[in-house]
Amino acid sequence: MPLLKSWVESANSAETGFPLNNLPCGVFDDGAGARLGVAIGDMILDVAAAARAGLLPHGAALGGRDWNAFMALGPAAWAELRAALTDLLSEGSEVRAQVVLVPMAEARLLMPITVAEYTDFYAGRTHAFNVGSIFRGPENALPPNWLSIPIGYNGRASSVVVSGTDVRRPWGQLKAPEADLPVFAPCRRFDMELEIGAIVGQPSEGPVSVAEADDMIFGYVLLNDWSARDIQAWEYQPLGPFQAKATATTIGPWIVTKAALEPFRTSTPERERELLPHLQEPGPMIYDVELEVALAPEGGAEATISRTNFRELYYSAAQQLAHHTTSGCPMRVGDLLGSGTISGTAKDSRGSLLELSWSGSEPIELPGGETRSFLEDGDTLTLRGAARGDGYRVGFGDCTGTVIAALKDPYAR
Amino acid sequence: MPLLKSWVESANSAETGFPLNNLPCGVFDDGAGARLGVAIGDMILDVAAAARAGLLPHGAALGGRDWNAFMALGPAAWAELRAALTDLLSEGSEVRAQVVLVPMAEARLLMPITVAEYTDFYAGRTHAFNVGSIFRGPENALPPNWLSIPIGYNGRASSVVVSGTDVRRPWGQLKAPEADLPVFAPCRRFDMELEIGAIVGQPSEGPVSVAEADDMIFGYVLLNDWSARDIQAWEYQPLGPFQAKATATTIGPWIVTKAALEPFRTSTPERERELLPHLQEPGPMIYDVELEVALAPEGGAEATISRTNFRELYYSAAQQLAHHTTSGCPMRVGDLLGSGTISGTAKDSRGSLLELSWSGSEPIELPGGETRSFLEDGDTLTLRGAARGDGYRVGFGDCTGTVIAALKDPYAR
Repeated sequence: MPLLKSWVESANSAETGFPLNNLPCGVFDDGAGARLGVAIGDMILDVAAAARAGLLPHGAALGGRDWNAFMALGPAAWAELRAALTDLLSEGSEVRAQVVLVPMAEARLLMPITVAEYTDFYAGRTHAFNVGSIFRGPENALPPNWLSIPIGYNGRASSVVVSGTDVRRPWGQLKAPEADLPVFAPCRRFDMELEIGAIVGQPSEGPVSVAEADDMIFGYVLLNDWSARDIQAWEYQPLGPFQAKATATTIGPWIVTKAALEPFRTSTPERERELLPHLQEPGPMIYDVELEVALAPEGGAEATISRTNFRELYYSAAQQLAHHTTSGCPMRVGDLLGSGTISGTAKDSRGSLLELSWSGSEPIELPGGETRSFLEDGDTLTLRGAARGDGYRVGFGDCTGTVIAALKDPYAR
Repeated sequence: MPLLKSWVESANSAETGFPLNNLPCGVFDDGAGARLGVAIGDMILDVAAAARAGLLPHGAALGGRDWNAFMALGPAAWAELRAALTDLLSEGSEVRAQVVLVPMAEARLLMPITVAEYTDFYAGRTHAFNVGSIFRGPENALPPNWLSIPIGYNGRASSVVVSGTDVRRPWGQLKAPEADLPVFAPCRRFDMELEIGAIVGQPSEGPVSVAEADDMIFGYVLLNDWSARDIQAWEYQPLGPFQAKATATTIGPWIVTKAALEPFRTSTPERERELLPHLQEPGPMIYDVELEVALAPEGGAEATISRTNFRELYYSAAQQLAHHTTSGCPMRVGDLLGSGTISGTAKDSRGSLLELSWSGSEPIELPGGETRSFLEDGDTLTLRGAARGDGYRVGFGDCTGTVIAALKDPYAR
């Protein structure tokens, strides 16, 4: 598919992440209140205003402060809105005079959805191998169930924040390897994880197939699963990570819809072990999306510290969602599924500092001469992602967060 | 404190769980719609009607279908409502003619709260030792962190159901110890867990102390954390239980408020290892509540299979909640914290079939001659709990659920 031309000139550039082919869904506030918007070039289409003007179908579900009510309407409504938005913004649009656009530079981007529940997976083969090698040695790196199950754990929805939110270094119980007992102190090994989040737009009761799961997904966002490695190391046996992952998870402001990613569908890797039938994919269900992580020390220049691709994942979001329902677990509109860290096999394609610095034994060098094993206060992390079409890019928008210092005394009032 | 006398005669019996001293909060529907109610003897006070009649403070928060809006008002409002309800229902009440009572036998009891997020803990010393002994042997039974951290994991709020809801045996990946690979099949080791759930009635940002955490708790419910042991065994490494715990968690219909339990406050056990200061309790924070589990095979007589006490727990809900916030994790009104399985040291005081049958090696005998290692289809489980005062009981109401057969083909449509 070529670039679709819009009357919004900035949307026709080969550099924008937001051509007419994309139309990602967000929530913005330009001072006149939070409302739904769709990115087009360097502008935001005021979806609420367009709905009030009768320019869009399903207007009754487009007047709120999140996309949940619209997502609940289902795939037919999703397709109808996309078609109407495409008409409205395409070169030959006859109603362009009625369309309200807000410059993106003048808007604050807010949480695009209300997160119902948040689940984080562990679906990157290389990431799982790297982490397993660091903690248990390469011979025991991959747990026995890894090639059979898209392993996941429930996270904390209340801790999900939108890009641009500062992230405070947490306190927690830390036990040094040589110590007998833990101390309660600020985290010393604070990390990021490059992930993509799938947004569940339809509910389910009982088990769903992989094909049905794919139909339930509304779209995808960038996701940074901030991780306190020292808290995790002490707490995670036997019931999994808990406070190590509960400080914050940052999502990107723009939901790239499944429809926009359709031209970039590709297959998950060859199976090393045949999957049980209920987890087999009836078609390509991962996407070719280039990803990168940039780190900027406080007052310093930004450096790209990792480049990888969404298609590195062994399990697709549809497989994860299908597994999530096997026990009968009900899924809800607004559920968020983190993909798990996306690492390639090359050293500079690893999706976490734990892997990039090999648990601190090989600190990475930044252009200014500083090194990093884990995050320092003042560091700003930015995740970026884009699928590359023929003369256009489908971008996810920056997903950023700055680490701020731990509280001096968490219990001072 | 002695029995408080009510003009509702059935509330003055030494046998009722719902004397004037209790006043637990629920939601009921007698055919005229779901609304808030408070149990008194064998009747339910129609809270919504009393609020409309101007008999109760904070009436604007008492007209919905759950207690969340009222809980959000905070401890002063909780105390004011309790005082007003006590006046309304006490022997000398001058407005009894205006009070609407509905016979409990004619009402269906519904979810008392909308669960924001659900966390399950592992705070029973004996339970953790038993489970650890079964899976890892007695020498490695208690994980190294257990005496320092109230270990918990995030569960799935969408799977929480109210007493009386049937629970369908789940499918899942099961790997027999002697097999190389798993199969996808109905769970064969389906279990229950006797717990008490704490209901968080106030939100927090940032870490809270144990004393602050105790102030945030609105009340307690019985909780049965249905558990698929064979699914759990295969899936839980390294990120904890997931689908094994996602089929259903049943809570009792009545929230026994912290105020009603106040006379029964007692201390958690002596510490085997001194806790870090942020987890130390400033006073007694567990409760003396007698608990029991009854099992009735389909068409058979009910037998009590376990008797224990809430005070067996090593960590109180206030300690669990304080730990939950250490990383900065925001807590919300309606969060539900499962205590973890409550087992005493005696064999007949174990809170799960896994422990009662020692993983199936010592099946328990039922009065009808049947034996049980794990739950069979048609089994009805009932949890009961009551604190015993001077001539009265503060009861939790039955928390029941019946196991129904697995789907024949989970993907048939």
